[in-house]
Amino acid sequence: MSSSLNPEIDGHTYKRQKTDDINSSDPKVARRAKFEAVFDVIAEELLSYVKGEGMPKDAVEWYEKVLYHNTPGGKLNRGMSVVDTVEILKGRQLEEEEYKNAAILGWCVELLQAYFLVADDIMDQSVTRRGQPCWYKMPNVGNIAINDAFMLEAAIYHLLKKHFRQEKYYVDLIELFLETTFQTELGQLVDLITAPEDHVDLSKFSLEKHHLIVVYKTAYYSFYLPVALAMHMSGVEAKSAYDLALSILIPLGEYFQVQDDYLDCYGKPEHIGKIGTDILDNKCSWNVNTALKYATEEQRKILDENYGQKDSEKEAKIKALFSQEPISIPQRFEAYEKESYEKINGLIETVDEEGTGLKKEVFRSFLAKVYKRSK
Amino acid sequence: MSSSLNPEIDGHTYKRQKTDDINSSDPKVARRAKFEAVFDVIAEELLSYVKGEGMPKDAVEWYEKVLYHNTPGGKLNRGMSVVDTVEILKGRQLEEEEYKNAAILGWCVELLQAYFLVADDIMDQSVTRRGQPCWYKMPNVGNIAINDAFMLEAAIYHLLKKHFRQEKYYVDLIELFLETTFQTELGQLVDLITAPEDHVDLSKFSLEKHHLIVVYKTAYYSFYLPVALAMHMSGVEAKSAYDLALSILIPLGEYFQVQDDYLDCYGKPEHIGKIGTDILDNKCSWNVNTALKYATEEQRKILDENYGQKDSEKEAKIKALFSQEPISIPQRFEAYEKESYEKINGLIETVDEEGTGLKKEVFRSFLAKVYKRSK
Repeated sequence: MSSSLNPEIDGHTYKRQKTDDINSSDPKVARRAKFEAVFDVIAEELLSYVKGEGMPKDAVEWYEKVLYHNTPGGKLNRGMSVVDTVEILKGRQLEEEEYKNAAILGWCVELLQAYFLVADDIMDQSVTRRGQPCWYKMPNVGNIAINDAFMLEAAIYHLLKKHFRQEKYYVDLIELFLETTFQTELGQLVDLITAPEDHVDLSKFSLEKHHLIVVYKTAYYSFYLPVALAMHMSGVEAKSAYDLALSILIPLGEYFQVQDDYLDCYGKPEHIGKIGTDILDNKCSWNVNTALKYATEEQRKILDENYGQKDSEKEAKIKALFSQEPISIPQRFEAYEKESYEKINGLIETVDEEGTGLKKEVFRSFLAKVYKRSK
Repeated sequence: MSSSLNPEIDGHTYKRQKTDDINSSDPKVARRAKFEAVFDVIAEELLSYVKGEGMPKDAVEWYEKVLYHNTPGGKLNRGMSVVDTVEILKGRQLEEEEYKNAAILGWCVELLQAYFLVADDIMDQSVTRRGQPCWYKMPNVGNIAINDAFMLEAAIYHLLKKHFRQEKYYVDLIELFLETTFQTELGQLVDLITAPEDHVDLSKFSLEKHHLIVVYKTAYYSFYLPVALAMHMSGVEAKSAYDLALSILIPLGEYFQVQDDYLDCYGKPEHIGKIGTDILDNKCSWNVNTALKYATEEQRKILDENYGQKDSEKEAKIKALFSQEPISIPQRFEAYEKESYEKINGLIETVDEEGTGLKKEVFRSFLAKVYKRSK
């Protein structure tokens, strides 16, 4: 029986039954449900391609599970922000076909993320992701997950060709995905060799290294990519407009990741949906890099002796140290947040709406979602 | 010290010093050396891009090692066949710039293969590759190799953009690589779930499954891709010409892989450069699928009880069985080889050189390299 080899997930089908949610009176629920409904369409397209190539039933079912286990299920902020940005740039509600195309680009961002996360979880030896087992931890999957990650990436370009081949910005979309992928992988490389989980060497850390990792590993694909995709779909062509968007979205993405690092230690588990493990995992986070910058000689010794080890007592010592003077992470974070907010707002003010086809509201809505978030 | 984390390889630099070989009186040595010299150029381009993005020294050095450990060092048949095919199609020696561009496309095929092999070795838990340790087995590498594989793939599209952005067939090149990648991954998926190393179930095997795996996992990227790239570079545009090339190269690729499977069991280790382990590794090879097709009930029992286990006595039993009547692998292989050769020659005869821009010689030279090879 081929099915005996397939990863088992509760024994029931993957297709979600959410059509009712589209009509929900809660606009957030309806918005998400509408976006999710497009995923069923593209999954069906991908599976019918695979079937059409003559792949056996067990392979088609396997790919269906890969797609559904790893792509929906997150917050979907990156994907839905493509749709939101197209709406803002066009200044109106989208027609059905426009919505579908924007949502497909959004799902391509989510597929890119899924590709990274499936691989990251293997590299980090993680156990759970989004409240369920990591894909490679599912029965019978293991390292096959590496090839599955590849096939999540391949889905992006299949969908771009199917839906955007006739557009004059088709090649721009492909290049944007490919270049963003390379940038993210560079960030991941620097992160992996700077902060391996099993070898602590804080002399390799610095706020400059943190900046580089965050910009490459997160900001490009999470902030610039969705907006740049939406700009292409909305007819924005000037290179200067893309440069301007980049100059705002990269600092915004960095600010987002610094918050993420801060919340890993100082956020409430019930807000952030997980218990932070950055200290235990030797993560090159904003907290530890800030601590390294301001630590006294004595505090530095405590950092070297206790950071990045699988020991909850050592973790507690680091947590206490982070709040001590002159390290004072909470106060420094507050100052950083204020400074970032003002800097990014200042950048947004420089956007020339007439000349570029851009709108300040694109960046304002991003900033509003990120500013002072607790989750 | 950042270098302490870097994979160590004999402590010396990666750059090969082969300029003398380009002037070798042995045309095979000179041909390979000329092709290899182009790799140094593209590696330098990739590294200078990475440096230009501000990546730290240890990351740049890491990527250099990834590129050099995994890309050259094989037989380079796939890569060099792009150059050979362009020469045949143009009917003359290539000018310097033409040679370089054809060689870059050739190296992109080798990079694609490197991407697959780095990942395959992790998935198969292999130990050596091309007479050296698998990349993931190198000190300090481990699962970082997954991200390294990604960065080998990313190199392809960086190079295509840098060198072919201005060509009208640029988008065709990108799509060809992307689609071939997806096809190869589909073949890999079917192989992985049909023949997992740790779970023998010969009822999942068949010559039809073998055909599918071989075509998708090997033939597209090893045979069709290099020729199709050369056709684009040579100005061939008609879709019918690509369809025709595909219709010849897929059977040729299948024939090549059947030989490979046959030689794994019947080839001389000193010829094929390795000791075959397909029987031990539960591989879905042509040999076992042919055996399954022709085995008596009694022989089938021996197959079920002994195939795919890490036991050299069981392996010996299978080897003996393969040669027994009515399985008779050597005789059946001989018949298969003759039949394939005649079929492929027949297909080559149908090539209309005038109408398509194709040349029979492209396929004849491929077939000549493959026919009755012993290594």
